[in-house]
Amino acid sequence: MSSPPQQYCRLTELLGEIVDLNNLAAIAYWDRQTYMPSGGASARKQQLTTLSSLTHKKMTDPTIGELLEQLTDYEDSLPYDSHEAATIRVARRDYRQAKRIPPELVAQRSEASAEGLQAWLQAREEADFSVFLPALRRNYDVTRRIAQALKPDWDPLDTLIDRREPGFTASEVGDIFSQLKEELLPLIDAVSQQAVDDSVLHQHYPEQLQWENTLDAVSSIGFDLEQRGRQDRSVHPFTTSFSPDDVRITTRVRENDFSAAFFASLHEAGHGTYEQGLTDELCRSILGQGASGGMHESQSRLWENLVGRSRQFWHFFYPRLQKRFSSQTDGVSVEDFYRAVNRVQPSLIRVEADEVTYNLHIIIRFELENAVYSGELSPADLEAAWNDKYSDYLGITPSDPVQGILQDIHWSGGFGASFVSYTLGNVISVQLFEAAQREYPDLLQQFERGDFCSLLKWMQTNVHAHGRKFKPKELIRRATGQDLSTVPYLNYIRSKISDVYDL
Amino acid sequence: MSSPPQQYCRLTELLGEIVDLNNLAAIAYWDRQTYMPSGGASARKQQLTTLSSLTHKKMTDPTIGELLEQLTDYEDSLPYDSHEAATIRVARRDYRQAKRIPPELVAQRSEASAEGLQAWLQAREEADFSVFLPALRRNYDVTRRIAQALKPDWDPLDTLIDRREPGFTASEVGDIFSQLKEELLPLIDAVSQQAVDDSVLHQHYPEQLQWENTLDAVSSIGFDLEQRGRQDRSVHPFTTSFSPDDVRITTRVRENDFSAAFFASLHEAGHGTYEQGLTDELCRSILGQGASGGMHESQSRLWENLVGRSRQFWHFFYPRLQKRFSSQTDGVSVEDFYRAVNRVQPSLIRVEADEVTYNLHIIIRFELENAVYSGELSPADLEAAWNDKYSDYLGITPSDPVQGILQDIHWSGGFGASFVSYTLGNVISVQLFEAAQREYPDLLQQFERGDFCSLLKWMQTNVHAHGRKFKPKELIRRATGQDLSTVPYLNYIRSKISDVYDL
Repeated sequence: MSSPPQQYCRLTELLGEIVDLNNLAAIAYWDRQTYMPSGGASARKQQLTTLSSLTHKKMTDPTIGELLEQLTDYEDSLPYDSHEAATIRVARRDYRQAKRIPPELVAQRSEASAEGLQAWLQAREEADFSVFLPALRRNYDVTRRIAQALKPDWDPLDTLIDRREPGFTASEVGDIFSQLKEELLPLIDAVSQQAVDDSVLHQHYPEQLQWENTLDAVSSIGFDLEQRGRQDRSVHPFTTSFSPDDVRITTRVRENDFSAAFFASLHEAGHGTYEQGLTDELCRSILGQGASGGMHESQSRLWENLVGRSRQFWHFFYPRLQKRFSSQTDGVSVEDFYRAVNRVQPSLIRVEADEVTYNLHIIIRFELENAVYSGELSPADLEAAWNDKYSDYLGITPSDPVQGILQDIHWSGGFGASFVSYTLGNVISVQLFEAAQREYPDLLQQFERGDFCSLLKWMQTNVHAHGRKFKPKELIRRATGQDLSTVPYLNYIRSKISDVYDL
Repeated sequence: MSSPPQQYCRLTELLGEIVDLNNLAAIAYWDRQTYMPSGGASARKQQLTTLSSLTHKKMTDPTIGELLEQLTDYEDSLPYDSHEAATIRVARRDYRQAKRIPPELVAQRSEASAEGLQAWLQAREEADFSVFLPALRRNYDVTRRIAQALKPDWDPLDTLIDRREPGFTASEVGDIFSQLKEELLPLIDAVSQQAVDDSVLHQHYPEQLQWENTLDAVSSIGFDLEQRGRQDRSVHPFTTSFSPDDVRITTRVRENDFSAAFFASLHEAGHGTYEQGLTDELCRSILGQGASGGMHESQSRLWENLVGRSRQFWHFFYPRLQKRFSSQTDGVSVEDFYRAVNRVQPSLIRVEADEVTYNLHIIIRFELENAVYSGELSPADLEAAWNDKYSDYLGITPSDPVQGILQDIHWSGGFGASFVSYTLGNVISVQLFEAAQREYPDLLQQFERGDFCSLLKWMQTNVHAHGRKFKPKELIRRATGQDLSTVPYLNYIRSKISDVYDL
């Protein structure tokens, strides 16, 4: 392969500047969620607006279009999976998308989000969905118009899903979700007859000890807290990165709930390993991101659930826990503890849901978005439809909208395809895990020794190292040799639940 | 006054974007010094380079030049001290300065600094000035060429001083420093015959209690830690702000040295009050900065020394200290403590120097810079000259260059006018303090009650609220009714030392 033409170097330099600006925005965002005093909010909003309009300008700079045009022959001469071909391909997609959204719509998007956030907070305060409704309508309208601007001939929800999960359609996601629902609903029904004692998790766990415990756990699984990452506190846990060598995760500690901090930390550390895995060629590259929301979520759910809720993990980690929390774990066997962290119990709040019912929370939201986009449901009727679905699928009904339709922030900043990645991530995580197990048949036994290197290395090689060179389905096929399927996930969840419960 | 022409609105919008970008750089810088893991350094450098070249491009945008041209008549129609006239005046100065420095020189500046930092660190490691010398020469060369580009007809050191302290020349600064030297050298000589016991400061002060103590002190003097600011830890204490409503100070704690954290916090909080005082019209304005390095330093030294080392402050604060550190302060009277924090003792390290000898550290550096710029001294001879001056003025000689010429980071990123602001700040602080005292004759008595509102309010009204609308000398005249003078400072320091020592 000959050396790249100078247009390619010029392109990557322009893209590199955009990556820098995005990372600067990430720093400002991270600070806002972690350390910023309340007085800083208004200036921060202005700074981020200035930066994002500057970034949008750079991403729609006609020079990029011209360079991409001039690079067509070069791209054709390259192997499809080469770094250079992928850079040009992905840059072309990003450039076209950015070009198609008129600046007025970008501004309206930003206004609708700001208004939506205010209205959502207000509605939660008054526990009244109707207070949020006008802002929700506006967000729905703006989101739909963005979808239409991006792909005038497509169904808007398809466009929104394709944007978040490149290559997926609404009907494909719907199929996957139907397969899950069919299996999970009877399973939830079956376990509801039995009780698992998880009272060990609801004792007093002192803040500082919990903090140290989460640091121990996330560094055990291979998230680099020393040189290339750190953990801080925030109200809502999240992960961000400013380069593969500077990845930030956050968690929150509740003193009467062991799981809140522990599993949030593992979850975010899972995201963090993905970001830390975007090394070498992916540094300062437009390819240096996760392949999609769902692929990213596959990594967080992998470490949170497949590892962090496995019996083998707790055989390794429970002795450490017993040392830190001797009175809380007194008389509780590792098996008791394993069952406690795997308790299945329908509940109202998504972020606190167990591994099984979590998917139903997502499916409900997706079905509602689908119904609104297809015209079957008016936004005004969302609350009633929400409550009906919770009653149908989980057998419980929110007593007020704060516990119901107002619980998530997502719809305050857009409406459509907002949640699908979470459950896609669950499905993908097991398929990847099984592929890793084929390469390392004693993977679970390694966990018992506190050894997570093989699993992490497998993910780094087969997932992280590619960044967003490939679309999710393509990446899954390359990594596992198979098409995306719900079978591994459903087998896993059945066997897991049968193990915890006597089914 | 008629409403501003639309060119003025356009100008302030363009300047506002530049302010936003500068604040984003400040966020990235703050994070680098406080929380960034070591791995993040290389990407951060790249991000800051991208941002600064973008900001430079915006600041030299010919549109700004055209708008300024079109606004000449409008400016002439405005009162000199109006916000609008000052905005145009200062923008013109900034624009011209930015335009005069060719982009190659900006790049060379940045390379020379990066190289200088590396060489300085290396030289410190090897305790060998000659390792640093080539980089120092290069920085001297680049700094001088920048000065020549800015004002071809001026003496380069005058230009560099004018840039840091608008309106000052090297010879004016030299005069001020000579006046100080003449008085301070005999004073230092006189006190060296007497000993003040400051052993109370060198006991074990636990980290966390010291931290709480600094928070208490800085919020007592009126730095808003609740809504509009915060304190974090860093190796070298500093202050930065992302808006007047989001001001960050840092400190560092040494468990065997009470003064290190306490006076660093008060010093930075002093800077912080200036930044928090840049309210209203100064938000997102090119005027929303301190008037000069020296003016900024006048505020930090005011709160650190005139307040924080006053007898009245300790009458208020010592009981709090006794509660926190009862064993350390056992048997130590408030008068003993007051004398301890005012001990004068020639020492090698500038940042640890007392109120009196501190100025000599600055004067030495200025005289050396002056000698190099005038051609009397070659950079190669700086170390010997440094050691001679320490011996002459302070009666001590560094045993190695790490304790001597390699102690400060400043010359690794440029050479010229690097230190003058510190001592100018001392001089200005007393003149401002006395003016405030004329308005509030019982100012010092207020301190005894823990009441610092009058002093803070006076500074806000007479200094902070103007941002950089006026040049320092002009601002001092407006604030105090008098020209800058060393008389108040010298009176103050004589009377302070006579009070602490039996002279």
